[in-house]
Amino acid sequence: MTRAFISETIGKEAGASVQLSGWVQRRRDLGGLIFIDLRDRSGVIQIVFNPEISEKALNTAEDVRSEYVINISGTISKRDASQVNPNIDTGEIEVIVNDIDVISKAKTPPFHIQDETVTEDVKLKYRYLDLRRPKLQNILKLRHRLKQSVSRFLDEEGFIDVETPVLSKSTPEGARDYLVPSRVHEGEFYALPQSPQIYKQLLMLSGMEKYYQIVKCFRDEDLRADRQPEFTQIDIEQSFVDQEDVIALNEKMITQIMKDVKGVEVTTPFQRITHDEAMAKYGVDKPDTRFGLHLQDITEFSRTTEFKVFKSTAESGGMVNALVIPDKADAYSRKDIDKLESFVKTYGAKGLAWMKSSEDGFTGPIAKFFDEDKQAELKSLLGIGSNDLVLFVADKKKVVHASLGNLRNKLGKDLGLINKEQFNFLWVTDWPLLEYDEDNDRYVAAHHPFTSPKKEDEDKLETAPEEVKANAYDIVLNGYELGGGSIRIHDRTLQERMFRTLGFTDEERDDQFGFLLEAFTYGAPPHGGIAYGFDRFVMLLAGTDNIRDVIAFPKTASASDLMMNAPSAVSEDQLEELHISVETEE
Amino acid sequence: MTRAFISETIGKEAGASVQLSGWVQRRRDLGGLIFIDLRDRSGVIQIVFNPEISEKALNTAEDVRSEYVINISGTISKRDASQVNPNIDTGEIEVIVNDIDVISKAKTPPFHIQDETVTEDVKLKYRYLDLRRPKLQNILKLRHRLKQSVSRFLDEEGFIDVETPVLSKSTPEGARDYLVPSRVHEGEFYALPQSPQIYKQLLMLSGMEKYYQIVKCFRDEDLRADRQPEFTQIDIEQSFVDQEDVIALNEKMITQIMKDVKGVEVTTPFQRITHDEAMAKYGVDKPDTRFGLHLQDITEFSRTTEFKVFKSTAESGGMVNALVIPDKADAYSRKDIDKLESFVKTYGAKGLAWMKSSEDGFTGPIAKFFDEDKQAELKSLLGIGSNDLVLFVADKKKVVHASLGNLRNKLGKDLGLINKEQFNFLWVTDWPLLEYDEDNDRYVAAHHPFTSPKKEDEDKLETAPEEVKANAYDIVLNGYELGGGSIRIHDRTLQERMFRTLGFTDEERDDQFGFLLEAFTYGAPPHGGIAYGFDRFVMLLAGTDNIRDVIAFPKTASASDLMMNAPSAVSEDQLEELHISVETEE
Repeated sequence: MTRAFISETIGKEAGASVQLSGWVQRRRDLGGLIFIDLRDRSGVIQIVFNPEISEKALNTAEDVRSEYVINISGTISKRDASQVNPNIDTGEIEVIVNDIDVISKAKTPPFHIQDETVTEDVKLKYRYLDLRRPKLQNILKLRHRLKQSVSRFLDEEGFIDVETPVLSKSTPEGARDYLVPSRVHEGEFYALPQSPQIYKQLLMLSGMEKYYQIVKCFRDEDLRADRQPEFTQIDIEQSFVDQEDVIALNEKMITQIMKDVKGVEVTTPFQRITHDEAMAKYGVDKPDTRFGLHLQDITEFSRTTEFKVFKSTAESGGMVNALVIPDKADAYSRKDIDKLESFVKTYGAKGLAWMKSSEDGFTGPIAKFFDEDKQAELKSLLGIGSNDLVLFVADKKKVVHASLGNLRNKLGKDLGLINKEQFNFLWVTDWPLLEYDEDNDRYVAAHHPFTSPKKEDEDKLETAPEEVKANAYDIVLNGYELGGGSIRIHDRTLQERMFRTLGFTDEERDDQFGFLLEAFTYGAPPHGGIAYGFDRFVMLLAGTDNIRDVIAFPKTASASDLMMNAPSAVSEDQLEELHISVETEE
Repeated sequence: MTRAFISETIGKEAGASVQLSGWVQRRRDLGGLIFIDLRDRSGVIQIVFNPEISEKALNTAEDVRSEYVINISGTISKRDASQVNPNIDTGEIEVIVNDIDVISKAKTPPFHIQDETVTEDVKLKYRYLDLRRPKLQNILKLRHRLKQSVSRFLDEEGFIDVETPVLSKSTPEGARDYLVPSRVHEGEFYALPQSPQIYKQLLMLSGMEKYYQIVKCFRDEDLRADRQPEFTQIDIEQSFVDQEDVIALNEKMITQIMKDVKGVEVTTPFQRITHDEAMAKYGVDKPDTRFGLHLQDITEFSRTTEFKVFKSTAESGGMVNALVIPDKADAYSRKDIDKLESFVKTYGAKGLAWMKSSEDGFTGPIAKFFDEDKQAELKSLLGIGSNDLVLFVADKKKVVHASLGNLRNKLGKDLGLINKEQFNFLWVTDWPLLEYDEDNDRYVAAHHPFTSPKKEDEDKLETAPEEVKANAYDIVLNGYELGGGSIRIHDRTLQERMFRTLGFTDEERDDQFGFLLEAFTYGAPPHGGIAYGFDRFVMLLAGTDNIRDVIAFPKTASASDLMMNAPSAVSEDQLEELHISVETEE
């Protein structure tokens, strides 16, 4: 008889022999018997030590404590109806133990495994204990299932998993690189890749045609709650395709994933929205479409009002938007609304104007600026009912979108408008190719410098860069960016124009990307693809909002591994071999 | 109609419409027609431009050159029997082109894609062109298939793919680390992992039970022909198992792999040999069992001969071994044997003694030292026939094994004794736990410090370390180490004894591995596993002996990427942020 997983005992006949191995979750002594909750990867089961079955086993069990590792053999017994434990899968049975082996004793752990209140630093130091929690184990299993699902799907679609280098080259575009000093080449450094972008394009130039990789990428940025210095990307690239091909493939893939990982049927095609529409309707470029509360533009209306704040904003090229919260006029006190105002101020809004509708018209501090006609006009324009709260921001377009877009997301949560069982996939298309970086007074690539402009906008690359739309698309799930991609430039001349618009000198361009430009001259197929943030995908499917839950050995917000104690000092000999020295700040 | 792969045209009816995309491999003008060999990832096909079908397409085709990327549409036509090209899979058909689109022009490439004589440096600089060779593409496809096969198999066996950190901690054991300076923690460094050893053990301590990963590992060593600074490992670890469980799982996996990837049925169980036996019989720890030519020990016999070299070696604790090459006495001239002697000298042997057998007895310079009786004794002892070449080395055991073991491998190849279609998998078991490092006058771990000693040898850990055998095993394929593993230590006291035997002070031990030792005290399951060199596995299955053939973007022997130009200099600002400076040698 070989060892079985605890989950394998379910459905076994009474009297069947089993051999189990695992950790002691809990021990209770009761009426001369000992009861142990035994845990392994697959579940928990109650095992019983009875002196009438084995005095020896019972004696051994007396010394057993929490987190001891034991092997037992015994026989399945059905519990009385009154004893059934509905909280565990094996709750209808227990195992009567014949024999026990203590494999490993355990000191009292620094915290109780199931205790969720322990500080995260302590849990990270003892990550191997925290990982004993079924919640984290289940997330890692889900992560595994997602990876399997993606790679099986892509394999069946003819994609080839090609590994690209981790020891790569530093490029000044993008985020900060992690560097690796070379021992052989004095004073030179590798960089850890921020993405395999260039490599995957070269694979297309080499005729690989369909490539994918689930791959670690690295960014040395100051960490936020949902960032880690190393993260995993699902990277997909294909030749001889346009945007529609990429979208079709990815909808098929996501349908498969949702079936495999969540048992959920999603319907295709997914909803699509252009970037402009998304901003106008939701204020953000990754809208959560599980609820309404659309932003409404009343800039034109504002030109004709008496209310100066609106009027002057509209007349000076700004924007006025409204957010109507139906049937909530009586639910929000002035104090509640003050809190909403504080919220929008963090996004740069100077204030939050508001009115409440009732059977008798509008109330609120600004209602008096709108006469009866204007009130009627506004009511009809915004589709206002009889008990609605109406919120307004008048400001520069960017501020209006950011403040009301984020307020909308907050209200969606606060008001319980979101069905958490729903998975709303959404394509955001027609992104701008470039963004103007005011700090550095130059255009930067909205995605990256290899994204192609829409054919019809190519002419504007030099004359009106801000108007050029890109062949770029993001896939959004429930308000989170799941992935993004584009059809790439595959023409040397166009790529050179792009670099020029980005402010590269010819020398900088050739120095950094000369090999890629040259590669385009030996027969380049059109190509494009997409990259998913794998960790975030897992987070969304697992329903957690802590990225550390989806990574087996995560780093802290200061990029430390508290368990291994990394980073750490190294020997002078090591540094000398690498031709570097540490410069301590005076 | 959407674009088809060229391989999909095979079996299509004459007259069927197809749309193809790919690269122009060759163009020929013949009798007013133009013939192009069109290449995509899946194969090559002949396409024909005929003025009677489309004058316009013909005109366009006239400007087309090698490596142009084109789209064509046309109809399938069966070739006349006399025109069939047996060299390509599509040789029975051709496509008559209606329409052609030139997608991308191509300059004349720096070398002809199919030219195998170009220097490797040029090919590495233009790797994306070299990767257009079907040979390399097929190897990358095989690599992909192997990865798929392994991960599907392990998934079905209940193993979970868990990603471990790339930004890890430097440990002084093992090879040289690649270091990554930390920006946040001044003067501190991460290290790229040489293997996920510690992490996978911690996953076992966390109760993950069955883990695998196909993962990049890093070693900053001086490169040899079959080494790269970054390499890929198949890493498998399991709890509650012994050596037999690991061997059974891996035999099942390899059987599946060989079926999936090579279409070959291998039989299990695989042959097994202890490390001692392997050394005695083959002189090496990774024997190629596809041919015989065993080393034979004649040390005892040597004690009783008149031949001083043998006698004194035997008496002074050395060893004398013979290698009998049947029926080759007449095939080896004295000059040939001199070459064999030069070969063994590179392994430290002082010389290569030899005799030839004939109907009339032995000939050769040392034959005279053996009288008739001794010659008869030797003949019977070694099973010598009537036309055999017998080679001897008398030296220290280590030298005898290295020189004759490697000579055996050389002769196996030279004499054509190897069936290249054969896949001989072999387990080498019962490795020594420790090796004595004469340079540093201390014991080092033969595998790594976490390998467990055999239960029955534990007592000798302090008293006779060199005699302790380990629960360690290697899987060998055709004379190459494919992978190796062990059952690990899971007990704090035993792990501490191991570190002591390895010469760690208590402080060093706690500083580097304190967290692991502590982890053992909270309930540790027995566990063990194996790691395969994935790149080498691909090499052996692909039948190439150049590791750069199995890696999409390999580095040179000096760890350079000639295409990207990495490593490279970085800006002073980048270094300053990382608190380091370059120390140029004066």
